[in-house]
Amino acid sequence: MNLNAKALWAVESLLSHAEERRVVAHPIELGGRFVDCGVEVRGGLLAGLELARICLSDLAQVAIVPGSVGGRACPVVEVVTDQPVAACLASQYAGWAIQVGKFFAMGSGPMRAAAGKEAIFDKIGRRESPQAVVGVLEGRKQPTPEAVAMIAAACRVPRSSVTLVVAPTASLAGGVQIVARSVETALHKLSELDFDLERIVSACGWAPLPPVAHHDLAAIGRTNDAILYGARVVIDVACNDATIEAIGPRVPSSSSPDYGAPFAEIFERYGRDFYKVDPHLFSPAEVVFRSLESGRSHAFGAVDEAVLARSFNS
Amino acid sequence: MNLNAKALWAVESLLSHAEERRVVAHPIELGGRFVDCGVEVRGGLLAGLELARICLSDLAQVAIVPGSVGGRACPVVEVVTDQPVAACLASQYAGWAIQVGKFFAMGSGPMRAAAGKEAIFDKIGRRESPQAVVGVLEGRKQPTPEAVAMIAAACRVPRSSVTLVVAPTASLAGGVQIVARSVETALHKLSELDFDLERIVSACGWAPLPPVAHHDLAAIGRTNDAILYGARVVIDVACNDATIEAIGPRVPSSSSPDYGAPFAEIFERYGRDFYKVDPHLFSPAEVVFRSLESGRSHAFGAVDEAVLARSFNS
Amino acid sequence: MNLNAKALWAVESLLSHAEERRVVAHPIELGGRFVDCGVEVRGGLLAGLELARICLSDLAQVAIVPGSVGGRACPVVEVVTDQPVAACLASQYAGWAIQVGKFFAMGSGPMRAAAGKEAIFDKIGRRESPQAVVGVLEGRKQPTPEAVAMIAAACRVPRSSVTLVVAPTASLAGGVQIVARSVETALHKLSELDFDLERIVSACGWAPLPPVAHHDLAAIGRTNDAILYGARVVIDVACNDATIEAIGPRVPSSSSPDYGAPFAEIFERYGRDFYKVDPHLFSPAEVVFRSLESGRSHAFGAVDEAVLARSFNS
Repeated sequence: MNLNAKALWAVESLLSHAEERRVVAHPIELGGRFVDCGVEVRGGLLAGLELARICLSDLAQVAIVPGSVGGRACPVVEVVTDQPVAACLASQYAGWAIQVGKFFAMGSGPMRAAAGKEAIFDKIGRRESPQAVVGVLEGRKQPTPEAVAMIAAACRVPRSSVTLVVAPTASLAGGVQIVARSVETALHKLSELDFDLERIVSACGWAPLPPVAHHDLAAIGRTNDAILYGARVVIDVACNDATIEAIGPRVPSSSSPDYGAPFAEIFERYGRDFYKVDPHLFSPAEVVFRSLESGRSHAFGAVDEAVLARSFNS
Repeated sequence: MNLNAKALWAVESLLSHAEERRVVAHPIELGGRFVDCGVEVRGGLLAGLELARICLSDLAQVAIVPGSVGGRACPVVEVVTDQPVAACLASQYAGWAIQVGKFFAMGSGPMRAAAGKEAIFDKIGRRESPQAVVGVLEGRKQPTPEAVAMIAAACRVPRSSVTLVVAPTASLAGGVQIVARSVETALHKLSELDFDLERIVSACGWAPLPPVAHHDLAAIGRTNDAILYGARVVIDVACNDATIEAIGPRVPSSSSPDYGAPFAEIFERYGRDFYKVDPHLFSPAEVVFRSLESGRSHAFGAVDEAVLARSFNS
Repeated sequence: MNLNAKALWAVESLLSHAEERRVVAHPIELGGRFVDCGVEVRGGLLAGLELARICLSDLAQVAIVPGSVGGRACPVVEVVTDQPVAACLASQYAGWAIQVGKFFAMGSGPMRAAAGKEAIFDKIGRRESPQAVVGVLEGRKQPTPEAVAMIAAACRVPRSSVTLVVAPTASLAGGVQIVARSVETALHKLSELDFDLERIVSACGWAPLPPVAHHDLAAIGRTNDAILYGARVVIDVACNDATIEAIGPRVPSSSSPDYGAPFAEIFERYGRDFYKVDPHLFSPAEVVFRSLESGRSHAFGAVDEAVLARSFNS
């Protein structure tokens, strides 16, 4: 199961509908490819679904389903996966800060498994040595040749084998790919809490898609709120009830002392310093664990429609 | 992005499952093809989804999702598109009355863009000169050779390059393709209100699928009600709040003085004369605009379950 | 419309993603193929969706959609079909008890139409003589060569042309394929009530996916409850209102005197003897008939969230 090969296949699928999805592929000087899903182009909701699949190495189904926030119609992004660790942690988690000169973007997608430098890969394995790599960047700039060179070197591939798919936070595709992280945020939180990740067997998640904010910082607030106050996740775990009962209350966002206000407010409270925000805040509103050992369900947290409505209408 | 070529591809996809979808393709005397989705055959729900995609030139995702009306289970038709103007106005809108001799049917689908005679194409462009054309007819009759000849001439293609896909209003496939018009009716209303259509970037819509009525006139009533009292649409627009606030209240069906009764009653009230019904009635129950400039949402109108339940159970 | 050929195609589609779906195909001694979806392997939710499609001879769309039980997020399995009798009765119904020596499993899938020995085929026809057959077994054991020999003989194919896809009741894929039986149980009940099955034109159904129970008996209880207390079905029927009104009240599970308690309790009540349970209990909680003759809807029964929540959390 080569994650990068699977993601590359999903990239080609997106590009086969490039015009109608409003995405464009550009060669990068000196090698590599930039797939623009919302920087110079509009992108869209369906590009966002494909971007989410790319980010998940095509190991999850991602769809738009109906929902509502504050009594008003709101699309919801659904994710279903039977490879939650590979899809969400080895691939989708935005764990690689790409900083080269003035270029900066948070990197996700399976190129992370090729680079394999994050500590999480010591825990989950799944490092790989593919012939070509795919990364997803949340940002607003065309990747520079220097950024490509750094990624290529880290992944041990030629520059020409690097594909970077980019969408800003405040874009249609960017929004979809972020709120497709309902399951991922639950898994990452479980990883932080030292839960044995290999016991996570399958998962479904849903989160409402906020309106695209008018700038990226506001979009970070809203897309975070979609997860923190709006995401519902159901996880099938191969472990006993005691383990779930011990860790469960610490998993949903409500377990964090920072919980309760729209993310933008919390962020201001800490003087816009991400590192002061409680890292345990970042998880879904509701997490239901289903024990494959006992057959019992354990639910923690709940959706908070009031905060969601406030955030989406701010 | 050739609309007719895309629709033709969707026709072939439907026909590759013709037997299980209960549709049949017939040659028309002197040239052309009649794809029957509910005239002499039963058709069905999945044929309806494919018919909707054909009608949208395959520029939207269309699916059945769960819902309820009056507390009872009711399938809902979901539409998601990033090409709302091309899909809904250049293609799906039923803007071409095909009247040749005794043959009459409302015509939609991308053949309209090939004919290009409707005034709306002056506004939206997207006229095209394809090698073959696809039309969708809401009706109960096999298209006559004369109708095909007229369409072929209007579209500047040989008769043999005309495909007409037909389903009656009172049929399973016909019902699905009509309630797949949630987004289209919002766009058409916006067009009537002189909104700058190019600012409509992406859209999602949902409308409940009524039971097939026992005759076409009753079916027209119910399918209209599914939109007028049951459809919810979310539109991403590239314009400012003032523009939305000015036009928004006029968009949902409730802005019309005719709003409030099942369509069949309104129709009787006007002596069954369509042209006396307020044209501004024809739009979704609820329309949520999301400004891509300000990031704010603006919601207008609301679903009316009581009228829906009355209509669907009449 | 060769049911086994269509199911075989769906098997190959599943196997083309075998690793990520966590399924494995094994040759069976002396011929035949065992596709394991949850016996020695984990299987999963998406394998379950494909297993359901295989079981339905790929004549229905099957999807996971959002839902809730007792206020908690719960995936729901949706089925949409325009070939309800072929998909659900000629194929999906678990009407063939495979008992050979010590091997026992309930058999479903289109191999039943090839064997054609059940009385229901006298009613619905659709017997076929395919070159290869596909069966779905709800069980926990690898099919024995003797079981394959018996099936091959009954279906008049060589052993090597037998594919058996297996998932235990208490498994992720097994659970999905069982709760994908919302429409099937309605049809089977209608068959028991001597409704003219050819009048069933199209159908949609939804049922919540319970947590996998810790053993198969408990899983039988929960998956039954998902149907009996949680399934909603909408059926388009070509018959008049009087026929529907006469039969309708007898269709939902609530028409049975055994209705009201979780299935596991009912089962205990009868000393774990299936044959003492009222066979008319086995149908969806809510059934909506839509008459294609009158255009009217008739709804019977209702979801019982309290029993569902009790069952899923037992």
